[in-house]
Amino acid sequence: MSKRLVAEFFGTLWLVLGGCGSAVLAAGFPGVGIGLHGVSVAFGLTVLTMAFAIGPISGCHLNPAVTLGLAVGGRFPYKDIAGYWVAQVLGAVAASLILYVIATGNGASIGGFASNGFGEHSPGKYGLGAAFLTEVVMTFFFLMVILGSTARKAAPGFAPIAIGLCLTLIHLISIPVTNTSVNPARSTGPALFVGGWALGQLWLFWVAPLLGAALAGWLFPKLED
Amino acid sequence: MSKRLVAEFFGTLWLVLGGCGSAVLAAGFPGVGIGLHGVSVAFGLTVLTMAFAIGPISGCHLNPAVTLGLAVGGRFPYKDIAGYWVAQVLGAVAASLILYVIATGNGASIGGFASNGFGEHSPGKYGLGAAFLTEVVMTFFFLMVILGSTARKAAPGFAPIAIGLCLTLIHLISIPVTNTSVNPARSTGPALFVGGWALGQLWLFWVAPLLGAALAGWLFPKLED
Amino acid sequence: MSKRLVAEFFGTLWLVLGGCGSAVLAAGFPGVGIGLHGVSVAFGLTVLTMAFAIGPISGCHLNPAVTLGLAVGGRFPYKDIAGYWVAQVLGAVAASLILYVIATGNGASIGGFASNGFGEHSPGKYGLGAAFLTEVVMTFFFLMVILGSTARKAAPGFAPIAIGLCLTLIHLISIPVTNTSVNPARSTGPALFVGGWALGQLWLFWVAPLLGAALAGWLFPKLED
Amino acid sequence: MSKRLVAEFFGTLWLVLGGCGSAVLAAGFPGVGIGLHGVSVAFGLTVLTMAFAIGPISGCHLNPAVTLGLAVGGRFPYKDIAGYWVAQVLGAVAASLILYVIATGNGASIGGFASNGFGEHSPGKYGLGAAFLTEVVMTFFFLMVILGSTARKAAPGFAPIAIGLCLTLIHLISIPVTNTSVNPARSTGPALFVGGWALGQLWLFWVAPLLGAALAGWLFPKLED
Repeated sequence: MSKRLVAEFFGTLWLVLGGCGSAVLAAGFPGVGIGLHGVSVAFGLTVLTMAFAIGPISGCHLNPAVTLGLAVGGRFPYKDIAGYWVAQVLGAVAASLILYVIATGNGASIGGFASNGFGEHSPGKYGLGAAFLTEVVMTFFFLMVILGSTARKAAPGFAPIAIGLCLTLIHLISIPVTNTSVNPARSTGPALFVGGWALGQLWLFWVAPLLGAALAGWLFPKLED
Repeated sequence: MSKRLVAEFFGTLWLVLGGCGSAVLAAGFPGVGIGLHGVSVAFGLTVLTMAFAIGPISGCHLNPAVTLGLAVGGRFPYKDIAGYWVAQVLGAVAASLILYVIATGNGASIGGFASNGFGEHSPGKYGLGAAFLTEVVMTFFFLMVILGSTARKAAPGFAPIAIGLCLTLIHLISIPVTNTSVNPARSTGPALFVGGWALGQLWLFWVAPLLGAALAGWLFPKLED
Repeated sequence: MSKRLVAEFFGTLWLVLGGCGSAVLAAGFPGVGIGLHGVSVAFGLTVLTMAFAIGPISGCHLNPAVTLGLAVGGRFPYKDIAGYWVAQVLGAVAASLILYVIATGNGASIGGFASNGFGEHSPGKYGLGAAFLTEVVMTFFFLMVILGSTARKAAPGFAPIAIGLCLTLIHLISIPVTNTSVNPARSTGPALFVGGWALGQLWLFWVAPLLGAALAGWLFPKLED
Repeated sequence: MSKRLVAEFFGTLWLVLGGCGSAVLAAGFPGVGIGLHGVSVAFGLTVLTMAFAIGPISGCHLNPAVTLGLAVGGRFPYKDIAGYWVAQVLGAVAASLILYVIATGNGASIGGFASNGFGEHSPGKYGLGAAFLTEVVMTFFFLMVILGSTARKAAPGFAPIAIGLCLTLIHLISIPVTNTSVNPARSTGPALFVGGWALGQLWLFWVAPLLGAALAGWLFPKLED
């Protein structure tokens, strides 16, 4: 079990460092910044790269919602959820610490630090209802793609491409709404450094992704033969 | 049959929610918006991700023109077209409803809601003739790539990449002309919410894609051994 | 032979329509244009998609320099070069005609029509020497990737990804220098519609790509066991 | 041995010409420049394309840190390191020479020539500590992905995609900090043409990547069964 948890720790560290790091360091760089498109690609590639690297070790969940959805879908034992969740959250916190050191290395403040939020903390000022719906629906389809691309009848080897690029797609749609979570660990790391409102709104980025993931875990097996 | 139709419903829902959603929510986000390039990537990734997820279930058409082109090309039974078309249109309408709720969640109006159009409703003010030609030609090549990458001699497993990225390419070329359809279901969903001109011009986005798809379905088998 | 030539005709048509079309129609769209990055992606995806679709039929050269380089490298019979070149140039001309009809469909002039050029007709005003060197070197590496990714020891199925994305890469580097050719057919189509300077500079976009391709065709086999 | 070294020479030439070339020639092109996102894609695609082309010949390291990390991880003989390093640095220097000729072909000066730097020579003015940490961590994860995607249990054929896109991801995060090295050869080529500060800061872009790579070479085997 321990090798798998170390793999989940480093994998989630990479997801949060790469995704949130690209947002904090490069999205708004004057004149040539990568924008929301580049941040979306970065988030997706953290998962694509890690899924090729550690998929055979831990399954490369990197996300408490993914772990839950796979358990509901019958692909992962419920008793291993707690360990995975702890490793994922610790990886996200470690990533936020590294990013904090780098991002303040030019004397700048960390600003929103890529935290997720709704209402006045939504990038586009979307309210609680729109944010909740967005996170449920996006995580639902994320899990549909994960469950489908790793199903028994799926072409072997391609799942990391499907899953990583699905996370890119989800960010291309929904950064303006919630800064995009679909991953409670990814939300928790930066929120601990921002505090205040970010911690106050953190509940939504646990409840909604877990709900969406569980729905997909319930539905997908019914579509298989 | 019913599992296949449910898969087509959710797949088309994802295509329209992801593609039109990225356009409505993120394309013009101030300063860091994803632009037409990001929207093109989003449309393509909806198909890439779903083709890996539900390809083994329903074939992942997500598009009445694809279903017709495959039938003309001898790869799909004519008698199943109607069911697929209904599921696809219902998925597109459901996606538009979800997107409507999210997009108005910050008090904004839906604007053009990513509807397809020509003449004064073309993003670049292209006339009827250019729009019709564009939709026929783009759908023709879309089906050539679909038929070719799923042919008997094609490398197994890669078709979702070829087909998804072909849809990205088509959008990179033609959003300025018609906002890009090549998919009557994708056009129908948003048009029902916009009404008026969007419904009045909807015929073109059924006729031209179906014509282009049928042409490819007729031609491609003649190039195979 | 004839099925292969029809495939090369349609494939090159798609390359020029997609690559030059994205440049003419979408690169500079106000506020949300795809820019040189989007055009680079479009050129690459024309080859990626067609290589999956018609690779098993004709080999999917779509480019006189590719055909020559493969012949020099011992992978294609010299006697079939002429037929391939004619089909490729005809496809490029047909694409330019279609693009002409679409691009003028909003009353605009065609401008440079994505023609290749040097000196005052280079996008960044690069002189003849830099343009010639760029086209030789870029085509050399394009053929190295083509020959390597289709070699006997290469992983089967992946060549369209390697080759298509190599063309994207080449455009990311060199559009400012020559508008990027590495393909005499792609240069010939638009030049016939622009005339004047574009025809006068066309020789470079035949000579330099063919030279670079032949060099790679000579070198690569020496690196194989 | 000699064919492998020639392959490493040309491969590293392509990495530096493509990556730095896109930055120097196309990143800031007025109005339609590819920006940091396009440069990130270009760097990644140099590795993706070459890994498909020459992976079966030399393993396609193109990077002294990769060669060291693979040796520490037990995948490459220590005695062959020196030859690989020499070929890689020579390739990087040759690339810089070609790029110098092209980039000055419109009368412009070479400016920073895509050199790596920290402090006042960091694009975002990040200090020595942030730069060192960034290069160690990014190279560590680069090698984790390389070692993982080429491990015995990894899906065959996909490693060039994982590794190339990992380099894209690394650039999406860290160009503002150091202009992104993770590759001592890539740093050495341009620094020789810029001289002065670029040579004075070059030590960091050897020490930090080699350290990060060695750490991954030490850790990864402990996660495998």
